[in-house]
Parts: sequence; C-alpha cells; structure tokens
Amino acid sequence: MTQMKDPILLTPGPLTTSLQTKQAQVRDYGSRDVAFIEMTASVIAHLNDIVHGGDSHACVLMQGSGTFSVEAALGTLIPSSGHVLVCVNGEYGKRIARICEVIGRRHKILQTAEDQPTTGKMIDEALAADPSLTHVSIVHCETSTGILNPLEEIAAVAATRRRGLFVDAMSSFGALEIDARNLRFDCLVAASGKCLESVPGMGFAIVRKEALEKCRGNCHSLSLDLYDQWQSYLRTRQWRYTPPTTVVAALAEALKQFEAQGGVAGRGARYRENCDILINGLEKLGFVSFLPRVIQAPIITTWHAPADPKYNFNAFYDKVRERGFTLYPGKLTQVDTFRVGCIGAIGEAEMRQAVDAIAATVKEMGITQLKPSASARAVA
Amino acid sequence: MTQMKDPILLTPGPLTTSLQTKQAQVRDYGSRDVAFIEMTASVIAHLNDIVHGGDSHACVLMQGSGTFSVEAALGTLIPSSGHVLVCVNGEYGKRIARICEVIGRRHKILQTAEDQPTTGKMIDEALAADPSLTHVSIVHCETSTGILNPLEEIAAVAATRRRGLFVDAMSSFGALEIDARNLRFDCLVAASGKCLESVPGMGFAIVRKEALEKCRGNCHSLSLDLYDQWQSYLRTRQWRYTPPTTVVAALAEALKQFEAQGGVAGRGARYRENCDILINGLEKLGFVSFLPRVIQAPIITTWHAPADPKYNFNAFYDKVRERGFTLYPGKLTQVDTFRVGCIGAIGEAEMRQAVDAIAATVKEMGITQLKPSASARAVA
Repeated sequence: MTQMKDPILLTPGPLTTSLQTKQAQVRDYGSRDVAFIEMTASVIAHLNDIVHGGDSHACVLMQGSGTFSVEAALGTLIPSSGHVLVCVNGEYGKRIARICEVIGRRHKILQTAEDQPTTGKMIDEALAADPSLTHVSIVHCETSTGILNPLEEIAAVAATRRRGLFVDAMSSFGALEIDARNLRFDCLVAASGKCLESVPGMGFAIVRKEALEKCRGNCHSLSLDLYDQWQSYLRTRQWRYTPPTTVVAALAEALKQFEAQGGVAGRGARYRENCDILINGLEKLGFVSFLPRVIQAPIITTWHAPADPKYNFNAFYDKVRERGFTLYPGKLTQVDTFRVGCIGAIGEAEMRQAVDAIAATVKEMGITQLKPSASARAVA
Repeated sequence: MTQMKDPILLTPGPLTTSLQTKQAQVRDYGSRDVAFIEMTASVIAHLNDIVHGGDSHACVLMQGSGTFSVEAALGTLIPSSGHVLVCVNGEYGKRIARICEVIGRRHKILQTAEDQPTTGKMIDEALAADPSLTHVSIVHCETSTGILNPLEEIAAVAATRRRGLFVDAMSSFGALEIDARNLRFDCLVAASGKCLESVPGMGFAIVRKEALEKCRGNCHSLSLDLYDQWQSYLRTRQWRYTPPTTVVAALAEALKQFEAQGGVAGRGARYRENCDILINGLEKLGFVSFLPRVIQAPIITTWHAPADPKYNFNAFYDKVRERGFTLYPGKLTQVDTFRVGCIGAIGEAEMRQAVDAIAATVKEMGITQLKPSASARAVA
C-alpha cells in the first residue's frame, strides 16, 4: 500500500491517521441510505458524549474546515445586536475577530501576548467595564503557539457575569477534558481532523440547546446556518446539504478507536507522553521552546529558530521531511519560530524517531548555535 | 473488501465511484507538503481545462458541499448593489433565490413550470423589462427533475444584454460540453461528487478573471469568500483554510480516469447510453417519465409514482435496495414521483441490472397499474 511512503505528520491537522481510519473511506455511501443515517446518528451521539453534553446540549455537524464551523457558530449564536469580547493571543483568536468584522458582529478585542494566557481575571475586568458585552470568545488551545488558555476559570467568569461563552476547542477536543456538566458554554466548536485523529473535511458544534433555540434567523449565511442545520437534522435525520460521506465514515471509525483507547483520558495521556519526549529531546539538542512548560498544551510545540547562520527553515524542513517527518512552519509575526506537533495516530516510537531525525538534520546542516539570537529572545 | 457489499447508487451524488478513486483516500497528506501542493495545482488546472477556461478564467476550489460553492460564488460575484434575475424551474433554482434572500442580494424570480425549460427568449424579455437587473442565474441541469436548460442561448442573451451570468453546473459539469471560449459566463459552479465521479466534500468555481478581480470585499462571509480564496492561493499555492485532503486526493485520481475515458465526450456518451437503457427499460415496464425525452438531461430521470394502491415509495425503495440498487426520492411538490440517476462509475451492465431489479420489485409488490393517476398527470 502506498501509505507506507507517507511521512509522519507532525502538524496540527491534517495529521497521521490509523490505517483503519483511512480505509473506512473505501466505501460508497448513499447520503439518504439507512447505513449512512445510522452512522451520522452515532457520530453525533459520540461527539456529544465526549463532553458529557447529554440532553441539554445538541451536536450539530457542519461541512467544510474547522473555520467554517467557527464562522457558522458565531453567525448563528451571536445575534446582530450582540457584542463579543474576543480574547486574542494568537492567530485563531485573530481569526475570530476577523470573522466578526466580515459578518458584522460588534466586537472588542482583549489582546494578550502570544506567550501569555488570557485569564479569568482579565475577562472579568473587561466584562465589568463594559455592560454592553453579551458574549465572550476564547480559543482553548491556540495552535499558533500551543498555548493553553484556562478554560475552567474563563467559563466560570462568563457564567457569573451571565454572558454567553463561545469556545474554539479545535485543537483540544478529545485530548483535554471538557465537561459540559460543570463548565457552562453556549457553543464549543471543533473538527474531524485534529485530536479525534480522523481526516479533515468537517467540523461540528456542541451547543447548549437553550441558547440555540433562540437563534432562528440569526445567521448571515444559508450554508453555515447552524440553527437550520440542527432543525433540518431533527426533522429528517439527514444532513441538510450533501454530506462528505467518506469523511463521516472515517470519523465514525476514528471514534471507535478513540473509545477503545480510553477516550479523552487515554488520548490525553498519550499526547502528554509524546509532548514530553519531544520537548526533552529537542531541549537536550539545545533548541529553546517559545513557551514555558506550564502553559504548554500537549498538542503542538513552538521552537525558536536557531541563531546559527547555517539554519534556514526551508532547508531544515526539507531535510527532516526526507527522513520521514513533516514539520510545521511558525506563525508568529515578531519571532522566527518553527512548530512540531505531537498529535495523531503516533506514539513513543514515532516521537523518538522524530527527535533523532531532527538531531541528524542539525548535524548534517552543521548547526551548532541552537539558541535563538538575543534580539529574538528580547521580543519574546 | 467491504465495498463489495455497497449498493450501486442511482443517486445524483454521492454516487458510485471507482475502486481506484476510493483507494486514493488511503493516504495521509500534509496540507503544506509539496506532494499535496502539486496535487492541488493539478486539480485546478484540470478543472479549468475541462471548460477550456484558459488564462482568462480562474478555478477556485472551495471546502464543503456544492451549495457552499454556490453561496460563495453568489456572495462574491454579486455586489451588494447588484440585482439578480434568478431563473427557477426546480429545487436548485429556488435554493439560489433563498441564498440571495439570506445574504441580502436583491433578486427577481423568473419562474417556469418544473417540466418547462427557461428559454433565452424569456430571459431576454425579463432583462429588457428591467434595466436594474445586473446578473442572471441559471441551473444548467435541474437535479430535481433532470431537466436541461438551454445554456448556450441563455449565455448569448446575457452577453448581448451585457449582464453577468452565474451558472449552477453542479449536475452537468464533466458530462455536458461547456466551452468558455464560446460561452460567456462570469462564474460557473460545480462539485467533486457528481459527474467527475469522485467523493463529495468540495466544490469549485470557474470564474472569469476580469469579473473576479472586481470582487474584493463583496462577500458576506469569510470562509466562503471566493476572492480571498483565490488571492490566497495565488500567493501561497495552498488552500486558505484546512483542505479536505483525502477528498482532494480522490478527485485528483478521478480526474485521471476522466481523462483516460475520453473526457467530456466519453463521459457524456456513457451517461447517454446509461440513460437510454434506463428510460427504455422503465417505459417498457409501464412507468411514465415526468419529462419528455427532448428536455431530459442524461443525469437523472424522474418517474411518476404508479397509481396502483400497492405502490408506496418506501417499500419500493427498500426492496430495490435489497437487490443492490439505491434509488432517489422525488422532490416535486405537486406530483408524486421518484428519481433514478444514471451517473457514476457504472455502465451498461449496471443499468440493465437496475432495470431488472426494478422489474422484479414491481412483480414482487404486485404492482400492475404503473401509470400515474389521472390527477397527477393533470397537474403535470
């Protein structure tokens, strides 16, 4: 099979999936056929269970990439009279602000540095200062750095202040515990191709029904209307528009493996181990992590570019790729970095091989000065 | 392999795909990796070539179902000051009107009966009567019935009257010849899971560059902004947001087979043969086609429900399904019908088997009165 030639993807989605998950796509499903209808129902139930959504929450599937689901959720959940406090400490927080701008939702940005979590206290102060704010948006794990924002305390503040909470859980869903029974949110969004270890092509929202019930007619888009998508599903048990059948089949299969591997606890433990091997290995080589360990989520790690003039990212990427591993470019504007993910259907063996491949590449390129330049560290 | 158990899908997408197309999904592609970047570029070039788009046209890929691409194209190509003549003779024409309504684009409906093509003359008169109209939208082949609208004469009228033309070619692209060198349109939209015989999960637009260049900032949505998607691709050669990697891989593979099988001419010929076998076979059994042959596109056929009280669609569907073929429900509001598609990786043998399966089911259910009731025919 050709997939043996594929590199291990150390990227935050698309990522390396298991052979069973990939092979689940080798089927032709009719979108109105009973087998597919049952598969859709099982995926919905399973996703809702992962956050213990129960009867109080609905899971709504959405075609497209994760960003499509984020836009669908914002457009549907935030009425045109709403006002969103958008917490930003990376690219995905910025993207939420950009969506609000394009779809015409009033918003205010709460900016922190890219190595600084947004705290409950900051949000509390912002909400106290502006009673017109109706909602808060937070990115649980910011994929631009891998920083973890403290969701529990943020949700507690939003609940106390009686504001709606929107959570972008794209990179955390399935790997970090989120319990809707204790943690109040209006809407939480994620996608198929991240910690659930399936292929990309669909997202989903877990929504508090009480909030969603009021959202008829809110959305700026027909395709992205989460309320219509939900209502249509309740009536027909089918997707409103043509579903990505093979992507759904892969996700159904990936969810079975997720369960067999111990659910969130099992997946989180494997990723933490992957992350530890990676960080210990790269630090031992002399690389410097952009984030302190305590705010590092076990999803993706960000590393300062070495100061050595022999380093350049493209050559480094190509040579690590030749050794079978795909890295991820940095996404910070002020500091030169690269990223290495630790999620996907990979474990201890692959992470050790990845560290070895990076070590061999460093040696081959003759990079000796692995620490970043003084100026890069000053900016960070 | 489990796919041997899958029924033949006589549905207008998702449809039956070849084993090679399905198996192309059994890969892990990094979305920024060179192999995937090259695959994306080849798909774009190939799709543009199918309509002879050349340098004057751009092909822009879009995540999601076909409807997502239709909305993306309308939202991007029609400025908020625009006014669209929406030609409607079925469900998909109606959907365009609904999108215009939701996204706030002024529009006027030109309605004809579901068995009546929209003619160039009708459009010419409507455009003459209302100079405020800036664009015309037409569904090339209406999947709700299978009716073919005369695209050439419609495009000629729009060109003469200097109005922009939007074509929903969802069900015709790849099977019916469309030549952008002779046929002027601003934008033509289709999807992966139709006559290109790949899996669903992405759409695309072929856009006249001269028109698209003026569309910056038009779109009501970030995810669906076709202009941004295009510009971002030109800068990076990557998808703007996470692509459905395995869906793209399947389409790249399906396009190779499309070429090997003789392109549009080869595919169109096979579908016409499929359609002939189906129509001849069902008419011989006594079923009555909703459309006269001359306006029937070789994509999907619509049949009157038999008047026999022993007929009911669900039982009929289930029994044909047990024999290995998936039918499609009717979508007409006033007449009881069912639909049978003739597209997908199927040919003469499968179509003959399908007719046999339907014949056996008719016999098993004891249906003897295959003609529709008099009232159904009167409405039609």
